[in-house]
Formats: sequence, C-alpha cells, structure tokens
Amino acid sequence: MLINGKPDDRIACSDRGLQYGDGLFETLAVNQGRPCLWRRHMARLGRGESVLGMPASDKQLLEQEALSLCEGRDQAVLKIILTRGSGGRGYARPSPCAPRRILSIHPWPDYPRTWYTEGLRLGICQTRIGRNSQLAGLKHLNRLEQVLARSECQEARLDECLMMDEGKRVICGSQSNFFMVRDDTLYTPDLTHSGITGVVRELVIELARQLSIPLLITDLDLQSLLDADALFVTSSVMGICPVAVLDKRRYDLERIPIELRRRAEQACMAS
Amino acid sequence: MLINGKPDDRIACSDRGLQYGDGLFETLAVNQGRPCLWRRHMARLGRGESVLGMPASDKQLLEQEALSLCEGRDQAVLKIILTRGSGGRGYARPSPCAPRRILSIHPWPDYPRTWYTEGLRLGICQTRIGRNSQLAGLKHLNRLEQVLARSECQEARLDECLMMDEGKRVICGSQSNFFMVRDDTLYTPDLTHSGITGVVRELVIELARQLSIPLLITDLDLQSLLDADALFVTSSVMGICPVAVLDKRRYDLERIPIELRRRAEQACMAS
Repeated sequence: MLINGKPDDRIACSDRGLQYGDGLFETLAVNQGRPCLWRRHMARLGRGESVLGMPASDKQLLEQEALSLCEGRDQAVLKIILTRGSGGRGYARPSPCAPRRILSIHPWPDYPRTWYTEGLRLGICQTRIGRNSQLAGLKHLNRLEQVLARSECQEARLDECLMMDEGKRVICGSQSNFFMVRDDTLYTPDLTHSGITGVVRELVIELARQLSIPLLITDLDLQSLLDADALFVTSSVMGICPVAVLDKRRYDLERIPIELRRRAEQACMAS
Repeated sequence: MLINGKPDDRIACSDRGLQYGDGLFETLAVNQGRPCLWRRHMARLGRGESVLGMPASDKQLLEQEALSLCEGRDQAVLKIILTRGSGGRGYARPSPCAPRRILSIHPWPDYPRTWYTEGLRLGICQTRIGRNSQLAGLKHLNRLEQVLARSECQEARLDECLMMDEGKRVICGSQSNFFMVRDDTLYTPDLTHSGITGVVRELVIELARQLSIPLLITDLDLQSLLDADALFVTSSVMGICPVAVLDKRRYDLERIPIELRRRAEQACMAS
C-alpha cells in the first residue's frame, strides 16, 4: 500500500475521508501488471475532484505509483482513494488543502465461472439510493447505501441486488451498473440524479454507438426490466456479466448482442 | 486521542469509515470536564448502530474513555467516531465485525458573542440534501452534502446556510437544525426522509411540550420561513442561536419564547 507515494498502511484520524467521506475512489482491474481502462478511471476521478472542489491530482504521478504496485501481478484489483487530506473538526474545508492518495492492491476475486456462462441471480433490494444531482455520477466515499444494499444481497444469497430511488426508478446494482435489452435496443438508467457512472457502462455505451445498436439512456422501472428480453450488469472488476434471473423472471442470455459483449470483454482487460 | 481506548492518532487504511463512510459519529459540547447531553448522544448512536447493523458498543466504556479525555477541560468539544472497523475490499460487511471507536478532544470554537445577542446571518445554499428514509436522522459518516453546503456558506461569508431537498423542502442548516416561530407556534422540519435528528432539536421539542408551547413537525418551504416571525438554529456546539437575517428578511429575536430559550441553554451545558 502506498500513501502519498510511501509504503504505509495507516493514516491520520484527522483525514477527512474518515471524518466525512470527503473524497473519491476508483477500483481498477489489473491485467498483466497494468491497470485496465486507466484513462477512463482518471477522467472520472478528475470530474470528481472538480465537483468536490479538490485540487487536481497529478495523474502521471498516480500512474507511476499504480504501475509500481501492479508490477508482476497477473490479475489483481487496484484501489485508489483520494481524500481531501487532514483538516480540523467541522465540515468546513481546510485551506490550504493537501489531498491524500492511498493506493492499495488486492487479490482478484474468484467470481464463479458460471456467472459468465449461466448468468447472475438478481433481486431488488429494500435499500434505496438517494437522489442528489450534484453528487450523482461520482465515485465518492459516501457509500453507506451500497454497503446496506450489499448486505441485503448477501443475506438473500443473491449474486447482485438492484437499487431503486424513492421514485421507484431502478438505478444500479449494489456494485454494478446494468443494461437491459428489449427488441434489440439497449436501455440503461439515466444517472443524472443518482448512482455512479461506471467506466464499463461508459465503454458499453460507446461500443453500442460504434456497432450501431440503438441505445436509450432513460428512467427504467421494475416492470420494464421484467418485460425485457435480456439484462446484463457491468463493473470494472466483473466486466460484463449476463443476468439469468431477476425475482422469478428468467432471461435469455442469447439476446445480449454478442459482438458488443465480446468487444466489451476485450476492452475491459486492456490498459 | 483514543482509539479503542489506547492513545493513538492513526488508523488502518482498511477501516471502513475511510473506505465507505461506514460508521457514525457524535459531536458533544464539554463543560467543566463533562460531556453534555451524554444520554441523548448515546441514544442516537445506539439507533445508528442498530440501523447500520453494527454490534452495540459498550456505552459505559465509551463514557469512561470520554471522561478521561474531558478531564480538566473547562470548555471543549468531544468527537466520537464509531466505524465498522477493518474489512476487505468491496462493500460487503466484514464478518465478524470489530468496530473501532475514535475519541478526540478539540478546542471550544469561539463563536462570536453577537451570534447570541444579535443573531446569525443565514442564506439558502445550492447544495441539496438527499432523501433516504433508511438513513435519515442518523449522524453517519456520509457527510459530503454538508461539506459542500458549509463551503458555500464560507464563500458567501454567511454564518449558516439552510439546505433544501430536491422537493424544495427546507431540511436543516449545514451544521444545525432549525425552528421557526409563527403566531406563537413553533415549527421544525419533519426529518423522516432527510437530515440529522439533532440532540438539541430533540431537547427543544421536549421543552416546548413541557412549556405547553404549540409545536408542529412538518414540511417547511422557503416561503413559510420568510413569513415566520422568528427563526433559531440548534446544535450541540452552538446550543440555541437566534437568526437575524435570512436572505433579505430580518427577524424579531424577541419572538423566540424566552423561557424555552433559557431552559434549552441551561440543558445544553448539563451532562
């Protein structure tokens, strides 16, 4: 683990990441010693820094540090946390602000092979995701909703749980974004007010355009998901993963555009 | 600073308080060596532990540690952070879970005397507060909205900023709750869906009942605040503080029930 470039695994309790969740993070797949989709992750981090009013971090320095941690790792997960650094008591932002960067490397999760061949078992969770247009899209450190959603998922022994906002729009999985296929059109939720704009979600949206697959970014309710021909979820670590079942509805994995899936899988493992 | 009872000022980066804001906190006024409103703070902490599914902390142990830090302090601020402890990567809660408690003592803020005699200058901030019925009321560690609201407040050189939800209900200040007085009735926002149920807010609600002052807990929009006779804000550290101005509207400080204010001020400084 590297903190501001130095090997360490502890931080000051005055860090605002701990005090208020005042910071951002990125979770990257590592393949053959290199972090995947690096530029996309850095672009999202940069958007977050700008919204939170943090000074822009040096992305080249981050890349050097990331590469040094990833060296020799065949498959792993790299986590980058960027906090606003230490501050006094109280919500007011410290000035000047000295952000803290924490890079850590983790084992590659052994997701069952069947997730990719037979699909995930999904449910809908009770935990709602809040609406906040200012923070929507960012991968910030305020993630209690996802923590509670993930717990529900585990308790129900499901692979993933979908989260709705208070208006019953289905927004995302507890640790993923999702797409639905209906009549050969792709749909994915509008994340203007809630959720995290996943880098693989972005990638899939671009690939769909390149492949001339019609795609709509819009509000989706549970019924439209149940009426869909196919569903799949995306995340940096899971990649692109078909859904077998939502509640009692079974989906046809073959209805996921095969070329889109193939290209997305390839791109997810490239730096 | 005490971490799990031992003097220290750093924690493991694997702490879920840092990773996800997965924890709770309390900020207490300290008066003559004792934390004020102790039982109320512990009650809220207990509610939070229950909602977040954390094992209940030993409140007697917390009190011993709090008293040892407060000893000899005439006026100070005590902050208690309770996290879900260390865990692996990913949102899933660690099992077993070993929560971490972090107690720190801070200088008493020198709020201007004029805040209490002439009142605060308030504005409305652009940062919205999200709605989430499950987390509403709790003083959890996901506080980015308050951080952004507080920044607006500082940039506008205001003493406090009121936060609205996306439905334009006024919910709270960036670091306080509020009450309005109209025709000798008290009003304070319903916090079922947003905000933090402040311990001084609770105290004021109880005192109003004891003093037979009519009180309504309801949704309030900006116009009803502008139409009010008086406003005041409450917090553990500020106590009870009248509002002089909101936007361009000036309020009559004398319309705040004097006996309620006196008793609340007294109770805020008692253990």
